[in-house]
Amino acid sequence: MRSFSSQYQRYKASVDRQLRSCIKKSEPRSLYEPVRYILSGGGKRIRPLLVLLASEAVGGTARQAEHAAVAIEILHNFTLVHDDIMDNASSRRGRATVHTKWDTNIAILVGDELVALAYRELLKTRSPRIARIADIFTEGVVEVCEGQAYDKEYETRKHVSVDEYLLMIGKKTGKMVSVASEIGAVIGGGSADEIRALRSYGASIGRAFQIQDDLLDIMADEKEFGKPIGGDIVEGKKTFLLIEAFARSRGADKRLLRSVINRGGTSRKNIPAVREIYERCGVIQMAKQTIAKNIDGANKQLSLLAKSNARDMLYWFSHMLLNRNF
Amino acid sequence: MRSFSSQYQRYKASVDRQLRSCIKKSEPRSLYEPVRYILSGGGKRIRPLLVLLASEAVGGTARQAEHAAVAIEILHNFTLVHDDIMDNASSRRGRATVHTKWDTNIAILVGDELVALAYRELLKTRSPRIARIADIFTEGVVEVCEGQAYDKEYETRKHVSVDEYLLMIGKKTGKMVSVASEIGAVIGGGSADEIRALRSYGASIGRAFQIQDDLLDIMADEKEFGKPIGGDIVEGKKTFLLIEAFARSRGADKRLLRSVINRGGTSRKNIPAVREIYERCGVIQMAKQTIAKNIDGANKQLSLLAKSNARDMLYWFSHMLLNRNF
Repeated sequence: MRSFSSQYQRYKASVDRQLRSCIKKSEPRSLYEPVRYILSGGGKRIRPLLVLLASEAVGGTARQAEHAAVAIEILHNFTLVHDDIMDNASSRRGRATVHTKWDTNIAILVGDELVALAYRELLKTRSPRIARIADIFTEGVVEVCEGQAYDKEYETRKHVSVDEYLLMIGKKTGKMVSVASEIGAVIGGGSADEIRALRSYGASIGRAFQIQDDLLDIMADEKEFGKPIGGDIVEGKKTFLLIEAFARSRGADKRLLRSVINRGGTSRKNIPAVREIYERCGVIQMAKQTIAKNIDGANKQLSLLAKSNARDMLYWFSHMLLNRNF
Repeated sequence: MRSFSSQYQRYKASVDRQLRSCIKKSEPRSLYEPVRYILSGGGKRIRPLLVLLASEAVGGTARQAEHAAVAIEILHNFTLVHDDIMDNASSRRGRATVHTKWDTNIAILVGDELVALAYRELLKTRSPRIARIADIFTEGVVEVCEGQAYDKEYETRKHVSVDEYLLMIGKKTGKMVSVASEIGAVIGGGSADEIRALRSYGASIGRAFQIQDDLLDIMADEKEFGKPIGGDIVEGKKTFLLIEAFARSRGADKRLLRSVINRGGTSRKNIPAVREIYERCGVIQMAKQTIAKNIDGANKQLSLLAKSNARDMLYWFSHMLLNRNF
């Protein structure tokens, strides 16, 4: 496990390096200064890692896939910049968001430019399958926008079902994770079966990742988590936990959850009470099972691939996701 | 001439039809309703026309290039939606802008989705040169963002030179016009020389078009123009005319123009005085000459192509641009 962890750090460092060096220009400054700022802001670099490993897992190299890996990370940063405007978020990864440090107009433009830079990077990929790669990437961008639109729609709706929630996160978060592993497989020269397996691996990982996010928000150790827990409850975010708990609870529990939903949030002092409801009605357990089921599904897909170091690392990766606390 | 005009109307109607039919989905409604709204809002459809004609002018068909034509118009609409947010514009083409009719968050997301939809449409092009086509398109998106960034930078700067202005409009407006004719030529199977000629034709047309826009804002007949003239002066927009007139004028004239620049605009009652300065110092004449020079340059590029109906229509098109009053 230790060696995978250091391999991950190496890939991550390489992606960070390329993100810094892929922007050659500095003019207009009002555009490229914030572009550099956001791309050097760190992050787990999960999506590019999947691109690189998926290419290797089907017999290609990480090198072949590196432009696509960087492209997917740039695109991810575009979604962060624009989502932060829409969510009025003032900080991200411990730093001021672009629209806070500069202004909303700059942040809109920076996001737009990041989409263009992502395509520019993607199109540097030398592959006879480049048209297909661009198609897959583009469907990813479309779905990310759709997912964000659903997310915003749900904020103002009283009732959201678990299925609707899963559709939304599938588009907003899951899709680009599955695009990452699918594109890696295509670049690496994977067969139709291998590509399908890796796309499906990514979709399951993406789903597990998002539910884990929801879970950590309420169950994490604050020190390791790096921010106060319960933020989703304070904001009244319709997470997997809140939606499912609302459907299951009765009486006073249901009244409390209804007020969180109807008022679009609650005060910090109610966090422990909501957490107790979550535990009592079994949604914490259910979320953990859903994550485990998705990780299981992801691993089943990996078993369809030939044995390789990259495949082992993908197993390690899903295991790590399941046990992460950050 | 009459037949070119009706041919133009036919191409325009066909692009309008495809813009309406290329969006199959209606959910999430918060996204696709405004997407349909903006794509059905009309416009001169100049860029798609250039794509179609450029393909024909090098021996290809308009049909081959139709997805790219629609893609470039969708991309153009993306720039309108996001620019209107940044410019606080409440109406466009006689209708409420997206961020006014809905809200800023929706407009950000609609713009993002339009970029993705533009790529989706572009990638439907069946051509062995698809990677190159996507490259050219992507460089266009990058430059459009850069141009908009310069435009915003100039708003808060006291001094902008004519060269800086030309660099800015070259990126913000000219580039996508030249991308349109270049992509059409690539799709149509043009030779390196033909592609170069049509790219250069587009760049000249784009420049002429923008200076004509600046000129019409102050010289047009209000009825034909469809909106009050002098808007650029009221807003203190650093147009070709204002920049050049400021450099040329002296005494009281210079003081008036300086106040327009420093205060970021002036009252409507000063419009006639500013227009008189423009005429007196010769910038109206100079703008007309610059337009004529660019149209001349555009036509020289056309003379490098073989004779064809499409080439004749491109001549007609630049002639029409030179004489438009809307």
